[in-house]
Amino acid sequence: MNKKAIALMAVCAFLLSACQTEDPNTKEKETVGKEMETTSQLSNDYYSAIITDGAYQTSLNRGITLGLNSNVNLKAFETGLMDLSQKHYATDTYYFQEGQYIDADTTSKWLSRVSEENPEGLNPEDNGDVEPDGRNPIYLDSLLEQDYMIKKGDGFELGGISIGLAMNSVDYYTKKEFGSEFETKISKEELLAEGQKMADKIVQRLRKTEGIGNIPIVVGIFEQSTKDNLAGGVYISEAISEEGSTSLKDWKSINQKKLIFPTSGEESNELSSFQNFKAEIENFFPNLSGVTAEALYTDNQIMSMKVSINTQFYGESEIIALTQHVAEKASSFLLPNIPIEITIDSINGTEAFLSREAGETEFYSHVFD
Amino acid sequence: MNKKAIALMAVCAFLLSACQTEDPNTKEKETVGKEMETTSQLSNDYYSAIITDGAYQTSLNRGITLGLNSNVNLKAFETGLMDLSQKHYATDTYYFQEGQYIDADTTSKWLSRVSEENPEGLNPEDNGDVEPDGRNPIYLDSLLEQDYMIKKGDGFELGGISIGLAMNSVDYYTKKEFGSEFETKISKEELLAEGQKMADKIVQRLRKTEGIGNIPIVVGIFEQSTKDNLAGGVYISEAISEEGSTSLKDWKSINQKKLIFPTSGEESNELSSFQNFKAEIENFFPNLSGVTAEALYTDNQIMSMKVSINTQFYGESEIIALTQHVAEKASSFLLPNIPIEITIDSINGTEAFLSREAGETEFYSHVFD
Repeated sequence: MNKKAIALMAVCAFLLSACQTEDPNTKEKETVGKEMETTSQLSNDYYSAIITDGAYQTSLNRGITLGLNSNVNLKAFETGLMDLSQKHYATDTYYFQEGQYIDADTTSKWLSRVSEENPEGLNPEDNGDVEPDGRNPIYLDSLLEQDYMIKKGDGFELGGISIGLAMNSVDYYTKKEFGSEFETKISKEELLAEGQKMADKIVQRLRKTEGIGNIPIVVGIFEQSTKDNLAGGVYISEAISEEGSTSLKDWKSINQKKLIFPTSGEESNELSSFQNFKAEIENFFPNLSGVTAEALYTDNQIMSMKVSINTQFYGESEIIALTQHVAEKASSFLLPNIPIEITIDSINGTEAFLSREAGETEFYSHVFD
Repeated sequence: MNKKAIALMAVCAFLLSACQTEDPNTKEKETVGKEMETTSQLSNDYYSAIITDGAYQTSLNRGITLGLNSNVNLKAFETGLMDLSQKHYATDTYYFQEGQYIDADTTSKWLSRVSEENPEGLNPEDNGDVEPDGRNPIYLDSLLEQDYMIKKGDGFELGGISIGLAMNSVDYYTKKEFGSEFETKISKEELLAEGQKMADKIVQRLRKTEGIGNIPIVVGIFEQSTKDNLAGGVYISEAISEEGSTSLKDWKSINQKKLIFPTSGEESNELSSFQNFKAEIENFFPNLSGVTAEALYTDNQIMSMKVSINTQFYGESEIIALTQHVAEKASSFLLPNIPIEITIDSINGTEAFLSREAGETEFYSHVFD
């Protein structure tokens, strides 16, 4: 079963469970009389989330992002949109709520190909061709809605919406069910142009949706990474529709990339410092099966790094010694001043974890015993 | 393949790789001319580990503890012996090294049944009976050696040894290969008496081992938990052999236990505070598949708690909101003053982690994005 099918099943299972437990009389959208509170906020990097009647509200198309190429894409798609949103909706005045306007049924229609039966489809019609270069590819792979709420009297009201569009740079498809997988490659220019056209249509549709009115809508275009890429995708373009406008102008390009060290890194200070760190660790420890890192760049400047150390688990003493050694070598070899997260994993899961925030010199560390 | 077989294969694979890479001329034990340094020490709870010629020395019977009933037993067996050792060998003057005296071949003989072919076996002879109550059970399941080194001039020398004996309260066995599993139950009194007898024999053998001489030997008797227990085992008795003595007197019993909340907890403040916490979290979040905790007691006093929250993964926003909510509710509901570790896991692994050390009021938290 492919990931799309799993995602769809997850959505179905969720909708089914919602149907079974929800009183049909309460289905219409009403916030009157509901008690709303918020979660705590662990740092300015995060939004407090809205809690309605004691429960966290999951999105109406919950589970749809499970269909992305990989788990790293899923996380980057969601947290990337939150990061974009922070420039428009400050974390100290806005509160987070998962998307409550675009439901699973609508999402499913939008993500499908346009056809007579599905006039709302955002992906191009099936032209009958099944060859990689002849067919119309699926450009839009997934769609994410995030709602940003503001305090109003005793309650909260919608203050802004953000929409993420996950675009394919490679569209994976099969010619028949359970057949071999083929690929249609899509250039960055093409996926960007298609994404921007779709964004306009989505904004027009949202402006007609009850409860949205003239609030700002931020749209981010996300280029998901391919299935064989250990790094997640990045947002490459964004725009905002304000004052009820039904189109998006002034698209801003975002110059971000993620490199996997040591394999895809270009020669640089940070790569050679990582290679020295890696050599120190591997030399010390006989059974490491991999030391890699995902480095995030904005405007060709390294912003943060996630290091992943894989080890065969022979015992807890080794893990403790390794963690202590890593803490020391990370401080002396890895780039200062950027946030770094290091996980030590075995087949049993995460065995230890180290983290240094921006501006700190020491690593926090924790061994899971 | 059972866990014992896997553990044995791990030992074999390791020995094989050692044979392939090691120069036969360097095989005799010599520390002269070797460059020894140590890892950093993250806190007083941990020992710095010795690094010899840039490499961490794994134990000579590495992998043998993989044969225990569960991963939680393995970790408790190792870290428990380190904890015991701290009372005898202070973490600021002693350095940790994995066992370098009892090799894999010796361990394998000691853990087997005694017989004409294997006079060194510590487990009782096979009496021919295969019935749970008639047969002689395997009392000793695994054996752990830890070496504690002290600084001497430019180098290090052995300052003390600790031995852990992992005893079965249930001996799982099959009547024929690949047959059904049967159980022989062993009372605590019986496993303790057997463990103490074995400990004497081991100390006598170690006193004759080259390089050990008259250094102190701490022995801890560990009662491993059964296969169906989510909690790991505990050390129940300890003794020390000093000044070259060949027997252990003055066994001290250790009154520790681990309870799983909410299932095996007895009515108590800590259990009801945990239940309130659990209810708050489950109410807030629609799809949690489990909120449990392992509580460690010493002398019937709760010492620490490890909380494990399992969730189905639908997206990163949920994980962030859940983590923020958990941080707040843990602070207000869970017992103050004891160290608490909380992990939020999904099928993808650890999604987030929170921790509060003894004496702190706030939780440290980290979301793996």
